[in-house]
Amino acid sequence: MSSIVALETSDIRFPTSLSLDGSDAMNPDPDYSAAYVIVRSDAGDGISGHSFVFTIGRGNDVQVAAIDALAGHLVGRELEPLLADMGGTFREIVGDSQLRWLGPEKGVMHMAIGAVINALWDIKAKRAGLPLWQLLARMSPEEIVDLVDFRYLTNVLTREDALEILRAAVPGRAEREAALMESGYPGYTTSPGWLGYSDEKLERLAREAMAAGFTQIKLKVGADLDDDIRRFRRAREVCGPDFPIAIDANQRWEVSEAIEWVTALAEFHPAWVEEPTSPDDVLGHAEIARAVAPIRVATGEHAQNRMIFKQLLQANAISVMQIDAVRVAGVNENIANLLLAAKFTVPVCPHAGGVGLCEAVQHLSMFDFVAVSGSRDGRMIEYVDHLHEHFVVPTEIRNGSYAPPVAPGAGMEMKPASIAEFTWRGRHAAA
Amino acid sequence: MSSIVALETSDIRFPTSLSLDGSDAMNPDPDYSAAYVIVRSDAGDGISGHSFVFTIGRGNDVQVAAIDALAGHLVGRELEPLLADMGGTFREIVGDSQLRWLGPEKGVMHMAIGAVINALWDIKAKRAGLPLWQLLARMSPEEIVDLVDFRYLTNVLTREDALEILRAAVPGRAEREAALMESGYPGYTTSPGWLGYSDEKLERLAREAMAAGFTQIKLKVGADLDDDIRRFRRAREVCGPDFPIAIDANQRWEVSEAIEWVTALAEFHPAWVEEPTSPDDVLGHAEIARAVAPIRVATGEHAQNRMIFKQLLQANAISVMQIDAVRVAGVNENIANLLLAAKFTVPVCPHAGGVGLCEAVQHLSMFDFVAVSGSRDGRMIEYVDHLHEHFVVPTEIRNGSYAPPVAPGAGMEMKPASIAEFTWRGRHAAA
Repeated sequence: MSSIVALETSDIRFPTSLSLDGSDAMNPDPDYSAAYVIVRSDAGDGISGHSFVFTIGRGNDVQVAAIDALAGHLVGRELEPLLADMGGTFREIVGDSQLRWLGPEKGVMHMAIGAVINALWDIKAKRAGLPLWQLLARMSPEEIVDLVDFRYLTNVLTREDALEILRAAVPGRAEREAALMESGYPGYTTSPGWLGYSDEKLERLAREAMAAGFTQIKLKVGADLDDDIRRFRRAREVCGPDFPIAIDANQRWEVSEAIEWVTALAEFHPAWVEEPTSPDDVLGHAEIARAVAPIRVATGEHAQNRMIFKQLLQANAISVMQIDAVRVAGVNENIANLLLAAKFTVPVCPHAGGVGLCEAVQHLSMFDFVAVSGSRDGRMIEYVDHLHEHFVVPTEIRNGSYAPPVAPGAGMEMKPASIAEFTWRGRHAAA
Repeated sequence: MSSIVALETSDIRFPTSLSLDGSDAMNPDPDYSAAYVIVRSDAGDGISGHSFVFTIGRGNDVQVAAIDALAGHLVGRELEPLLADMGGTFREIVGDSQLRWLGPEKGVMHMAIGAVINALWDIKAKRAGLPLWQLLARMSPEEIVDLVDFRYLTNVLTREDALEILRAAVPGRAEREAALMESGYPGYTTSPGWLGYSDEKLERLAREAMAAGFTQIKLKVGADLDDDIRRFRRAREVCGPDFPIAIDANQRWEVSEAIEWVTALAEFHPAWVEEPTSPDDVLGHAEIARAVAPIRVATGEHAQNRMIFKQLLQANAISVMQIDAVRVAGVNENIANLLLAAKFTVPVCPHAGGVGLCEAVQHLSMFDFVAVSGSRDGRMIEYVDHLHEHFVVPTEIRNGSYAPPVAPGAGMEMKPASIAEFTWRGRHAAA
C-alpha cells in the first residue's frame, strides 16, 4: 500500500495573446494557460500523476485554488483503493455535499474535480505500463460501466444500455487496435482559421493543411459577415469544392442571427457550424439545427457536464458532439459522454488545441474507436499546432492523423523546464 | 468623482452542521457560509458596498478567490461612471474574455461576478438613500431595460418585449408601493421540514408556522419514501386539508423516480414539487411536469443563469420560478429573470434561507410586485428563521409576511462583530 503525500499545483500561463494565435470572435486575446496539478505518492516507484485544467489566462489562479480545495479528498489517503475503484472515487469527489453547492457539477469546481480524476488516471495508466487509451480499451464492458455515474442519465441511458453498447464492440477490438497503430486517428486543423490572421496567411495555412493530409479545416466566423464571406470564399478556392471546411462562431450569435448568418454562408457548404450560440441553450441549438439543416450543428467544448450532452442529443440539437478532455469531471464523465453519443449514433469529434488538449483528448477518441463506437467514420480530432513542445509525450501527427501514443500515462505531463519557465509571476516575462 | 480603493473579502462560515439545521436529501450537513465582499471608495461619505455569495462550507475559500480575481475590474476605477451605467458595468465584467472561459456564465466565477455587482448596487442604493427594491421600482422602464443583457434571450424576450411588460406596470406603481408598506410581501417557511428533525419537531413547527401567518410550509423529501409519506401525512393532519404544503427533493431523483415518488405523495396534495432532479436537466423537468400535472414543478435556486430560466419556461418545465439572489450574476441578471417570468406569466417564489438570502432576495420580489409583474397573487418568498441576527438590517416578518425594508441599501451587510467572530480559521470555534 502507498499513500498520497501531496497535491502540488502550479499556475502556468503562456503569452499567446502576443501573437493572436487562438483569436476568435469571443476570445480576442487568450493567454493559453494551465491550472496544473501533480499528485505524488510515497510508493517509491517514480510515478506521479499529472493533469491540468485549461484556461485562457485571467482566473487561472482561481482554478488552481479550486484544485487545492480537493486536497482533503486525496492527501493522506491510500492510493491503491482509490485507483482500484475509479468509479467510486469519482462519485465520492463529485458528491462532496458541501463543494457540490459551488456547481453543482459545472464550472470551476467541476473542472477542478476533472483535473484530480485525470491525475489519478495518469498514475493508474503508468502503473499498468499502458497509454490511457489502451488501458481503457482493454477493460471489460462491466469494468467500464462501473466507471460511469449514471445519475441523471437513466431516462436516456441506463447501465444496461451502456453494457449493450460496449458488448457489441468487444468483437473486433484487437483488429481496431491494430488498425489504429497502423494508420492513426484522423485529425482536422483549425490553424488556418483564426480571426487575427490575414487572408494570405489563411490561404497559405489552408494549402499546408491539405498537403499535410488533414481531413478538414475550420474557420473562425462571427465577427463580421462580409469578412466571413470573403475568407470562406478564399478558403473554398484554395481547397476546392469538396474538401470539408467547418465554421466556428464561438457562441457569438443569437438564435435568429445564427440562422441568418449560416444561411448566408451556406453556398460555401460548411461541414458543420460550431458553437452558434450560448453553450447552455439546448433548445436554441435545436431551433438552429432545424433551420439550417442539412448543415450540421456541432458543440460541446463548453458543455458543462453529461446532462447537457444528454439533452443536446435528446433534442436533436447536434449532429456532431465535441467533447473536451478538461471541461467536465475527467475521464469518467467523458466515458459517459461517449456512451451517450454511441446511443444516439452521433459522431464524436473532440475539441482540442489550447495547451495540451490534443495530448489529452486523443486517448478518449482512440478508446472510443476500439471499445465504444467501434468506428472512425466521420470522426476526427481537432488539431492545432501550438505548444506541444512543452509536453513529455507530445502528439505525433502522421499524414494528418494522430499517431497513437505508446508511452504509459494519460499524456498530460508537462516538462519540468516548461513548468518552471511559464509559471505565472503576475505578468508575462516578455511584458 | 471618487475611486474604488479596495475590494475586501472574508471567508465566513457558521457551524450550522452541528444542529442539522438545513439538512436535506442532498445536503446532509451544511455549514452556512458567505464569501463576503466589501467594496470601499475614497468618497469620504461613509458608504461601502456589502455583498456575498452563499455557500455551504467547503469551497468557500475558492469562492473568495474568485471574488478577489475581479479586483482588476474595480480597484482604482472611478466609481460614479460604474454606478451610472450598471448595465454597462455588468456587461463589462461578465464579458471579460479570459475569465469567461471559467464558466461561461456559470458556477464559481459567475457567482463572484454577482457578488461585486450586488455590492455596487448596495452603494448605489445607499447613495440614493433608498432600499434597493424602491430604487429599482422607481426607475423608468427605459432605465430598467438598460440594466439587462438580452444576449441569448432574444428568441424569447427582446428589449421591446421587456419595455412593454414594464410600461404596462407603470400605472399603479404608487398604489402597490403603498400596499406593500401596509401589508408586506407573503412569506412561506421551510423551518418545519428539514430531514434531520423529528416528527414531533416537524408538527410543532408546522403549527407555529400557521399560527405565525405564513402562507405555506415546505417539507424536504427524497431520502426515504416511507418516511416522506409518514411525515407528509402528519403535516397534513396538523395543517388541515387546504393549507399549502410544498415538497422539495433537492435534486435527489432520476426523472422516472421523481414521477413515481411524486405520484406516491399526490394524495397529500403537494403545492409544488421542488428540484425533483438535476437543475441542468430542462427536458427532464419538462418530462416530470407533464407526468405529475396538475401538481406543479418548481425550480431555480441552482439555475446557473438566465439561459436556463429561458429554457425552463419555453419547455413548460416549471409553473413556479425560484430565483436566488446570489446564484446568478447579481441584480441585473435577476431583473432579466423576472422579466422572463412575467413574459410567461409564471409566478416567481424566490429561494431563500441559508445565511442572508432572505435579506437579499426580498428586494427583488418587492421590485417585481411594484414594477414588473404587478402582482403578489400566488407569489411568496421562502423564509427560514436562521442567522438573521448577523445582519445590520435583518428581515422583519409580520403576520407571515416580509415587511418592506426601509433602510438604504441592498440589505446584505453583515455586522462587523459577526464577520469577526465567524471568519473561518480552518475549523469551527466549537470543534
